[in-house]
Amino acid sequence: MNRRVILYVVGRIMVVTAVLMIPSLIVALIYREGWVGVYPFLATMAGTAFVGWGLSFRRPEDMTYYMKEGFVIVALTWIILSLSGAMPFVISGWIPKFYDALFETASGFSTTGASILTDVEALPHSLLFWRSFTHVIGGMGILVFALAVMPRTESKEVFVMRAEMPGPTFGKLRSRVQTTAQILYVIYIVMTLVLVVLLVLGGMPLFDSFIHAFGAAGTGGFSSKALSVAAYDSVYIEIVLGIAMLVFGTNFTLYYLILSKRAKQAAKSEELRWYIAIVVIAIMAISINLRNVYESVGTLLRNVFFTVSSIVTTTGYATVDFKHWPLFSRLILLLLMFVGSMAGSTAGGLKVSRVAIYCKTFIREIRRSINPNRVLPLRFEGKQLSKPILQQISNYLILYASLFTALTLVVAVDLNDFESAFSAVAATFNNIGPGLGLVGPAHNYSFFSPFSKVMLSFGMITGRLEILPMIVLFSPSTWRKV
Amino acid sequence: MNRRVILYVVGRIMVVTAVLMIPSLIVALIYREGWVGVYPFLATMAGTAFVGWGLSFRRPEDMTYYMKEGFVIVALTWIILSLSGAMPFVISGWIPKFYDALFETASGFSTTGASILTDVEALPHSLLFWRSFTHVIGGMGILVFALAVMPRTESKEVFVMRAEMPGPTFGKLRSRVQTTAQILYVIYIVMTLVLVVLLVLGGMPLFDSFIHAFGAAGTGGFSSKALSVAAYDSVYIEIVLGIAMLVFGTNFTLYYLILSKRAKQAAKSEELRWYIAIVVIAIMAISINLRNVYESVGTLLRNVFFTVSSIVTTTGYATVDFKHWPLFSRLILLLLMFVGSMAGSTAGGLKVSRVAIYCKTFIREIRRSINPNRVLPLRFEGKQLSKPILQQISNYLILYASLFTALTLVVAVDLNDFESAFSAVAATFNNIGPGLGLVGPAHNYSFFSPFSKVMLSFGMITGRLEILPMIVLFSPSTWRKV
Repeated sequence: MNRRVILYVVGRIMVVTAVLMIPSLIVALIYREGWVGVYPFLATMAGTAFVGWGLSFRRPEDMTYYMKEGFVIVALTWIILSLSGAMPFVISGWIPKFYDALFETASGFSTTGASILTDVEALPHSLLFWRSFTHVIGGMGILVFALAVMPRTESKEVFVMRAEMPGPTFGKLRSRVQTTAQILYVIYIVMTLVLVVLLVLGGMPLFDSFIHAFGAAGTGGFSSKALSVAAYDSVYIEIVLGIAMLVFGTNFTLYYLILSKRAKQAAKSEELRWYIAIVVIAIMAISINLRNVYESVGTLLRNVFFTVSSIVTTTGYATVDFKHWPLFSRLILLLLMFVGSMAGSTAGGLKVSRVAIYCKTFIREIRRSINPNRVLPLRFEGKQLSKPILQQISNYLILYASLFTALTLVVAVDLNDFESAFSAVAATFNNIGPGLGLVGPAHNYSFFSPFSKVMLSFGMITGRLEILPMIVLFSPSTWRKV
Repeated sequence: MNRRVILYVVGRIMVVTAVLMIPSLIVALIYREGWVGVYPFLATMAGTAFVGWGLSFRRPEDMTYYMKEGFVIVALTWIILSLSGAMPFVISGWIPKFYDALFETASGFSTTGASILTDVEALPHSLLFWRSFTHVIGGMGILVFALAVMPRTESKEVFVMRAEMPGPTFGKLRSRVQTTAQILYVIYIVMTLVLVVLLVLGGMPLFDSFIHAFGAAGTGGFSSKALSVAAYDSVYIEIVLGIAMLVFGTNFTLYYLILSKRAKQAAKSEELRWYIAIVVIAIMAISINLRNVYESVGTLLRNVFFTVSSIVTTTGYATVDFKHWPLFSRLILLLLMFVGSMAGSTAGGLKVSRVAIYCKTFIREIRRSINPNRVLPLRFEGKQLSKPILQQISNYLILYASLFTALTLVVAVDLNDFESAFSAVAATFNNIGPGLGLVGPAHNYSFFSPFSKVMLSFGMITGRLEILPMIVLFSPSTWRKV
């Protein structure tokens, strides 16, 4: 274990975190919040930059690191981002308890969007901006992570496979990853800014447009309104945001392919087809179930489309309180929470690629029991998946189910309603935000005990990083000296 | 596909089914139920025997069959048992709707114990006897099935592995299986009769003792009392039944080993240790959670021990209405429903062996991400599990979760409570019986729609047969001519 390199990289990231608070500082100045608005950020930035600078002061001679170190760095990054990102809320006194601020910030950086705030509209602009800006940082972070750190895990295999170019050789991979990352950043930022413009054109105030564009881009879902997107009551805004969320839930490599004039290759994406099919089927199933609930087909489709888009992309914006929908529709939403969107997007959940491979595994298991001796390869995106990769994908479900169960037992101590407890974990572990029952769109997570809040904060980060980095970080054998 | 052999074997089984109704007929005579009591059984026996005799009239020349045929035979057997076993209830008029009778009988043969009866105590003795006798048949059936049909599936591999003797060679396997099966039958029947005697000694009426011994032996859970075991309010009976259920949830090969004077080998069983650990931890966790609920420690432990034993063995007898326990305890019970008891017992659920292997897989996945290049074998019962077997065990979770989800969506149409819907599927698919909420111990399954009842009936059989046989039966490619 190369501890020096871990401290160095984490230190560098802390310095960057301090820099990333500058926009919020500017917002405080624009809205003339005075010293009260500026001070919490200045203090946090100074502290974070100081510690970060101390850690990364000297570049270690041995900069080699392996997957283990990569996992530890990624997990520590998200934890430290959440810890230092929580400080402005605590220092300003708007969220006095540290565990509450930690929950809110972990929810932001993990692009979850679950909140403990009971009166979000009371917050000053600078803090509202910072709260939503964490979504953008988290979303961007996950795009690098997917590209740079995960190459040896299965979803990355699928991810790289698809993006594979005929040109570069393996030796050029590193520089290619860096170039690709930069291109993805540009796509991400441009799409976010386009969304801001589209929302402003729909009559949303500029500040709110930034907030909601950030929430959609990171598939996070923090809003500046207590009623979330329902506050604007605008068909245009709902359609724009509904489509935007689906766009940010799409694998970014596809945009990269389109930009490099390989749109045909992008259109062939098998995961994209599964993704579209899941969205369409979910909308149809819920619409049929709700056919007698809304006054017109228009209202029905408008609410169902927005809700499905919001949930499947793990964003969590709301225009209706779907906790009042009948159980069948609630179950479909719950299933969408687990599926999530495409790998290589900013969305959470199991990811469409994994779910697609689970479906194919299901069918193959049946065929194998009918013809035990036939060789049945499993193909995805046109390529045969190797046995170790299939095993890893199946085992992921075991890791996932175990941690999900453990978290549910933790939150179960705080309440007596199974649907609320189950969906609270589903909505945080999969990075959605609002769940069902007591954590539905019209409620929040404030009633949980401090212990549950801390555990759910870790749950959000663990889900965001697809489990392994967090487990490796907290596993004693990682730190054992050989 | 050798269809002739399937029809022949199914025919033979139908004849046996008719014979198995004789004890119930005798009960009708003993309790002087007259023609009204005798007729439903006579008619069913005549019909079943006639069809069965017609199908098995001529022994096919080609008696070879493979796993595919084995699966189809097993699945058809359970379906036909349930269909013809339902007839006495319909003919007698006690359960007029066929789908209700099918549910009740599928619940019996699958050793589930879920009931649609709103007034069980009104039933005549002969029908009560038949209803519980299906548990004995189902439990016995599953012991043969585990021994004879499953050898090429994973849980059997574990099962056989453990029972492996140094003596016999592979050529002797068949006769060995037959001998072993006969020994297991004897153990099963003797243990059931011992339990009857123990219950009678505790003051339970003889008839009731048979009913409850049948329910415990098959880990089914049908009772002749509306209050289930609580009706007797006897510490002795609860302790005897509580222990008996755990005994029937133990792998029968261990008893075989003890009888053949290899008790040491039996004590070394890794699955047994996991089983005991799960029971002890569950009792402790629930007792701590309920520490302030009961008036005395004695009452607390008595209720918790019985309930844990009843749920983990997937029996489903009740002495308390645990739906009123706090959510944490209810979740522990729900988890026990999924775990079930040991492979090679009459219990349902995922089985302790699978859950133990899932836990080991969890730990191995973590170790693999810390040291990607190290070879990490996974051992169970002292032997290294091969990659294909591990893959099958992981994939089983995918099959399981998919069908579970589909069934939950089906029952969700009938009610609006997530806990009831989820636990109804958990309690039927894992063959427990009572669940939580609206399907808790004080309720029943009568309110479900006919469609849900039929689907849950298939769910009970599918869960009982560990999924694959039923899927193979209903898979079009099974029946396609090559």
